[in-house]
Amino acid sequence: MFVRNCWYVVGWDYELDEKAIIARTIIGEPLVLYRRSDGSIVALEDRCCHRQAPLSHGRREGDDLRCMYHGLKFNVEGRCIDIPGQTNIPEAARVRRYPVTELHSWIWVWMGDPQRADPALIPQAVGLKDPKWTLRSGQMDYQANYELINDNLCDFSHLAYVHEATFGAGEDKFARTRPKIVTIQRGIRVQRWSVDAPVQQYEDGTRMRADNWMTYDYLAPGILLMLSAQYPSGTAKRLEMAEPTGEPVHANFTSQAVTPVTETTSRYFYSWGPRSCEFSAPQLADAMMTLAGRAFEEDRKMIEAQQRNLTLHGATAQLFITHDRGPSMMREVLKKLIEGEQGALTATRPAVSA
Amino acid sequence: MFVRNCWYVVGWDYELDEKAIIARTIIGEPLVLYRRSDGSIVALEDRCCHRQAPLSHGRREGDDLRCMYHGLKFNVEGRCIDIPGQTNIPEAARVRRYPVTELHSWIWVWMGDPQRADPALIPQAVGLKDPKWTLRSGQMDYQANYELINDNLCDFSHLAYVHEATFGAGEDKFARTRPKIVTIQRGIRVQRWSVDAPVQQYEDGTRMRADNWMTYDYLAPGILLMLSAQYPSGTAKRLEMAEPTGEPVHANFTSQAVTPVTETTSRYFYSWGPRSCEFSAPQLADAMMTLAGRAFEEDRKMIEAQQRNLTLHGATAQLFITHDRGPSMMREVLKKLIEGEQGALTATRPAVSA
Amino acid sequence: MFVRNCWYVVGWDYELDEKAIIARTIIGEPLVLYRRSDGSIVALEDRCCHRQAPLSHGRREGDDLRCMYHGLKFNVEGRCIDIPGQTNIPEAARVRRYPVTELHSWIWVWMGDPQRADPALIPQAVGLKDPKWTLRSGQMDYQANYELINDNLCDFSHLAYVHEATFGAGEDKFARTRPKIVTIQRGIRVQRWSVDAPVQQYEDGTRMRADNWMTYDYLAPGILLMLSAQYPSGTAKRLEMAEPTGEPVHANFTSQAVTPVTETTSRYFYSWGPRSCEFSAPQLADAMMTLAGRAFEEDRKMIEAQQRNLTLHGATAQLFITHDRGPSMMREVLKKLIEGEQGALTATRPAVSA
Repeated sequence: MFVRNCWYVVGWDYELDEKAIIARTIIGEPLVLYRRSDGSIVALEDRCCHRQAPLSHGRREGDDLRCMYHGLKFNVEGRCIDIPGQTNIPEAARVRRYPVTELHSWIWVWMGDPQRADPALIPQAVGLKDPKWTLRSGQMDYQANYELINDNLCDFSHLAYVHEATFGAGEDKFARTRPKIVTIQRGIRVQRWSVDAPVQQYEDGTRMRADNWMTYDYLAPGILLMLSAQYPSGTAKRLEMAEPTGEPVHANFTSQAVTPVTETTSRYFYSWGPRSCEFSAPQLADAMMTLAGRAFEEDRKMIEAQQRNLTLHGATAQLFITHDRGPSMMREVLKKLIEGEQGALTATRPAVSA
Repeated sequence: MFVRNCWYVVGWDYELDEKAIIARTIIGEPLVLYRRSDGSIVALEDRCCHRQAPLSHGRREGDDLRCMYHGLKFNVEGRCIDIPGQTNIPEAARVRRYPVTELHSWIWVWMGDPQRADPALIPQAVGLKDPKWTLRSGQMDYQANYELINDNLCDFSHLAYVHEATFGAGEDKFARTRPKIVTIQRGIRVQRWSVDAPVQQYEDGTRMRADNWMTYDYLAPGILLMLSAQYPSGTAKRLEMAEPTGEPVHANFTSQAVTPVTETTSRYFYSWGPRSCEFSAPQLADAMMTLAGRAFEEDRKMIEAQQRNLTLHGATAQLFITHDRGPSMMREVLKKLIEGEQGALTATRPAVSA
Repeated sequence: MFVRNCWYVVGWDYELDEKAIIARTIIGEPLVLYRRSDGSIVALEDRCCHRQAPLSHGRREGDDLRCMYHGLKFNVEGRCIDIPGQTNIPEAARVRRYPVTELHSWIWVWMGDPQRADPALIPQAVGLKDPKWTLRSGQMDYQANYELINDNLCDFSHLAYVHEATFGAGEDKFARTRPKIVTIQRGIRVQRWSVDAPVQQYEDGTRMRADNWMTYDYLAPGILLMLSAQYPSGTAKRLEMAEPTGEPVHANFTSQAVTPVTETTSRYFYSWGPRSCEFSAPQLADAMMTLAGRAFEEDRKMIEAQQRNLTLHGATAQLFITHDRGPSMMREVLKKLIEGEQGALTATRPAVSA
């Protein structure tokens, strides 16, 4: 089950150049995307209303798209405007159009009722060109349901285990303490101090320790926006574990998006990097992304193994532990959104696909 | 669903030499084929009645075939004539025998009631050795249901789009006009003039134009027999678009067969070439087959994409357009044949397989 | 359907060294195996009770095993003894523990009710270090249900056909006579003389003939223990086909195990070799294993083809022939064991997995 009335990240803006016609599957539905001559993006159902041929195999004609099986031509609204061999074009000759926009370096598609596609619901990710940060980007495909990846990102206690050799830095102290978690609009907020924690290995050879403040929002359907900020050891205690206000010694930001492709496959997008004002920020950003690449492979290996266990051997009863609070709260957020829109769904489909 | 009481092309006659034992699947049923010492072909169920081992892993013993799992031996009628370790051979010890014949360079198998296997129902394809034509042959496998391929072959308006770079010659005039289509015995007949059409690119460098007369029968289960004949521009108009009778400047003939392997896979056989009297007919035939190879890959790419959309995303409502007339008439022909034989089927299966 | 209350061969003892953590699937259930510091083996459910992550991705901590997703730690009983971030450990925090032991060079796992895991039920295989025999070992994976492999091993008439080029030595006399078969405790016993049979090709260049006495037990779930002994031609007749008691000229022994992995996959383990007292026993053992490797590939090819016929084309009625007696008796043994334990099953599962 998927939320429909929300913005899904379908790709990086740089994936879609002015000539490209690309096919993507989101929550099990086939999409075709391309740019109008003015650069704005069009997202249509990638399935001709005539014989289900993919429009992504089609031909751009100005801002329109012609199906290259039997030649039906569609405008940016998804309405058919030419059927070779006949002059009459029935009202039902159309494919679904999806609201789409680009913001913060991502292309966002609204999979639900177009009337409710509110740009204000797009999470405040940090784009790759934001001058405050020096960011690098990446992505990977998962053979796993998106909620298993959400679970992973809503509970960072796994850093001490899955990422023992990377983010975890060989310590399990992180998993022995708990973050503060609250529900926010369409998501959860997770905050914590890691007191006297090892500074990440992307630093120079000298291993240092610092108090690390980590705060992130996790928003439906699966967007993570996280600030990590290092302060001198002792800061957390001095602040009595309250949120810091002063400028940190180091800070970095990551935006991540988990997009369901099908029930058992997902695509994961991420950017990460330090403040641009940091020493050697570009080199630092490169090193962080190398580390992240290794670490995210560790996640993938574990989560895909978990999915295989579920697929091959079935779901068994799950033990609830204290660190499940974040994942459970986020699952609850999604469950309520899905339940809330069950009734509204059918009305949004065009008649021809009903 | 498949028609059973009809002749399916199972392969080219040259695929089965005097020593070969080959396995083929037709409409989901496993067949084994081999030649008797007199050269005639035997087609049996490729599944031993004992433990379902494939007889195609077996051993020829004269005209008989021995299963090489436990040694049961079958004669050309599919009757078991030896069971090692016992003398009694039960009546039920037999595999299904299929009527089979070779004609027009193809091996034809009758998948239905053997009593109704009428050789007169074999479509009049043109064999590779017919002196009138200089033909080349080819085949390809499809990851698609056979009816999707039938649809393609019963509506050539797709030439302007799928084959834009090959058969279509960059023009869509072909798709803007309609052929004459009538129902015939077990199929449809499609005929049309293409007025002042570009002559195919297999001609020499000079691009020429001509009036092209195209006429084909499409017969159950999926046999296409087509004549294309080029006349000087102006001929069609002079004949008031009637069928030509005089000798054309150029002419070529193609026989094609679509054979369902399973519900989602098919095998496609084809021959094509000019009249033997044409200038440089062998070279022309080679060039035509090279072009056809490229064009049929264009079809395959589109039809397999269509099948994937149907498989992954489900069938949605289909818009009916004017060019669907041919495909729809042919689907109707097959549907009536299938419905007509639903009652007769079970009686034809041997008791052991009931 | 599988028997649960029996010992399955999960692997060779040499597959599991002191540091290894290995994952295996038996009758569709995921297992993780490792050795305690005292060398004894632990077998647990390879699925954390928290989020189903595989414990085989975990970390050894002394004799315990820590899940490396969220850090839950399990002792050798499968009981959770550490949950990072909390002090309370619920009773339900456990994974299933399987009785496991090693004997005769194999690791045996009991998949049923632990209370009924009786070591006396382990078949008397001959281990690789038994001084009486010089044995070699091997294994292969099958894309086939284990009962199809059982069938193969309970009826050696197939030697004349499947193994025409190896064990069969080009003769079908073997298939024309029948063994004596009786039901024994949890299995069947098969015995026979092959009179004046060709001595196996692993002998020196000279092809010789001998009377061959073959006796084997086939025990649930799929263990074959077989002695082959060659006597001078004439011996069988002299003994009036009774079991021989004198010392044979040559003799060899094979232990084999068929382990169901899933309903359609299996793993097959085998050892084989001559008496250690035979001339050039080590070279002979090597030659026999080379022959066996080729012959067992012949079996696999046939059995996997049989499985494909069953999977793709469905089971049809099966003819019963005289040589089916062994396979049928063994299927009956397994059927009775399975039926006998249907009621007892659910009670053995820990509450958390119910």
